[in-house]
Amino acid sequence: MAKLANNENPYGPSETVLKAMNDVWKYANRYGYPDGGIRQAIAEHHGVKPEHVLISAGSGEILKVVDATYLPAHKYFVGPDPTYDSMYRYVTDTKGMALKIPLRKDYTTDIDGMIKAVKQHTRDVGLVYLCNPNNPTGNIVPKDEIAKLVSAVPEDIPVFIDEAYHHFVDNPKYESSIKYVLEGRRVIIARTFSKIAALAGMRLGFAIAPPDMVAEMNPQMIGSISSLVKYGGVAALKDSVYENKMKTVNKQLRDRTTSELASYGYEVIPSDANFFMVNLKTDIAPLGQKFAEKGVLVGRKFPPMDNWMRVSVGTDDEMKRFMAAFKEIMPAGKPSTSAGA
Amino acid sequence: MAKLANNENPYGPSETVLKAMNDVWKYANRYGYPDGGIRQAIAEHHGVKPEHVLISAGSGEILKVVDATYLPAHKYFVGPDPTYDSMYRYVTDTKGMALKIPLRKDYTTDIDGMIKAVKQHTRDVGLVYLCNPNNPTGNIVPKDEIAKLVSAVPEDIPVFIDEAYHHFVDNPKYESSIKYVLEGRRVIIARTFSKIAALAGMRLGFAIAPPDMVAEMNPQMIGSISSLVKYGGVAALKDSVYENKMKTVNKQLRDRTTSELASYGYEVIPSDANFFMVNLKTDIAPLGQKFAEKGVLVGRKFPPMDNWMRVSVGTDDEMKRFMAAFKEIMPAGKPSTSAGA
Repeated sequence: MAKLANNENPYGPSETVLKAMNDVWKYANRYGYPDGGIRQAIAEHHGVKPEHVLISAGSGEILKVVDATYLPAHKYFVGPDPTYDSMYRYVTDTKGMALKIPLRKDYTTDIDGMIKAVKQHTRDVGLVYLCNPNNPTGNIVPKDEIAKLVSAVPEDIPVFIDEAYHHFVDNPKYESSIKYVLEGRRVIIARTFSKIAALAGMRLGFAIAPPDMVAEMNPQMIGSISSLVKYGGVAALKDSVYENKMKTVNKQLRDRTTSELASYGYEVIPSDANFFMVNLKTDIAPLGQKFAEKGVLVGRKFPPMDNWMRVSVGTDDEMKRFMAAFKEIMPAGKPSTSAGA
Repeated sequence: MAKLANNENPYGPSETVLKAMNDVWKYANRYGYPDGGIRQAIAEHHGVKPEHVLISAGSGEILKVVDATYLPAHKYFVGPDPTYDSMYRYVTDTKGMALKIPLRKDYTTDIDGMIKAVKQHTRDVGLVYLCNPNNPTGNIVPKDEIAKLVSAVPEDIPVFIDEAYHHFVDNPKYESSIKYVLEGRRVIIARTFSKIAALAGMRLGFAIAPPDMVAEMNPQMIGSISSLVKYGGVAALKDSVYENKMKTVNKQLRDRTTSELASYGYEVIPSDANFFMVNLKTDIAPLGQKFAEKGVLVGRKFPPMDNWMRVSVGTDDEMKRFMAAFKEIMPAGKPSTSAGA
């Protein structure tokens, strides 16, 4: 099966990362020490101090812990709709109230809409969230819009920015929001080694946040990270050659595939991530099964974008198989350019 | 350093377990699927159904999730004192109130005392906990006393039994409490692959509980378990040869060391685990540093047993180094038998 359903890196970790992990089997029976200096390595790599860094078992743990720490029951969670659905699940599980702000007509995150919602409910807002680039759309929130949001949200309301797909972005309008943490704002950034570093199965992620927020979140952490992946993470940060290669290959295969889809008559949202969305103009639920029958696993549905299919960027061969399956399943449409382009 | 501080297995995982994990590097970039059938394998091995099993990143996650699910703020947590201190930390972090029941004079878990506490505060008790064998004392709670406790606690109060050290026990008075789960009682058993299977650094544990309780706890789980260790866990369950070898070697080295300590004049609590406690007759805090200077890391203090040092069972060589350090640091006392023996 071509697994294009979960935004994974299809190539696996780099040789240096695999070697770093294979070298530390001797710690498999120990409670995670020594840890390879992962926290220090993350801090140095991102220009922050170790006390800004909270390491986690994948960034999913950060999402859960941010919710548990900063969103009391019956407080509002303001986020785009759709976005990474796990976040809304955590919010609902702990009785937070989701204020979902629909994407704009061009499928970008509606920062003005989010600011308006915060202003209307300021005293009841617990947390503001966005994903940059957004999942499932793959598009970015430009740096000037992030600045506008951070400036408009009252300083005591935490703003949580999920940058899981940061490393794939090639767009001058984008920048990481780590700088707001260093400015002392109550901003939390989530990052993961699951995507460009290809360590999804090994579970490693982290938050960058003000030290007092790291201390507030820390008691909620499970603290259960494999000793192997801590060494893998340190090696991954150093392997810029592999990271650049992954970014280049991803962009090349993504842009080739989305061009082919546009030529075949299907609208695609311009993506800066390792996935993209294509408009099938009909509910995707039954179509996912048809792709599976042809050996291609595509993404789940992200309501309310029921007609849009999220496709992860796989290998060259996998993307060829995807396009072949697409042309067998879907009729040719009128050639179009990308949405918003 | 001889690491005798954290009740780890000093030998590391078995060859079959290492092979199973090394065979699945190909899943390092995937979100944990396939998972080697770990849940089914645990269920079969313990004679329960998969829906009785909740897998976790080490049993620490189970402790945290049991607390989060079953101990509302301001409800009582009834447990022995001392016991595994992480549990009390979770309870306190979430504003539960710990009702700590001191061990009996022979350092065994005071089941009658726990029953009495439950009867005195029935409506305000959220959770009853014990560790069997108990950590840090290493002694068991006999099966007839567990039966007495389970029979006395009202059926709607969950009883949580941590069996992290189950596999080291060689005592006819002991049995696992999994049978109460199968009887439909609100009993939760925690187990781990960190001890006899030597996978502490890889993070794998599980709970066995009634299916409705598994469903209640599941939303609290992080769900971040390394894909490698799921395969390692399946292999560990099958490797009874290694498990028996670990049990035998542990017992032999533990009993040799505790006999030597008794001959040297120091009281030891009879242990059925991979660690034991020895009475230094003075506060252990400054002595731990002296052992460290001689290359031996011993366990932390477990108040109120401030004069007792917990020592994990290491390799033959490590236990010889421990005894040599002990005789250099501690003066010879009057030869004694073990406490309670």
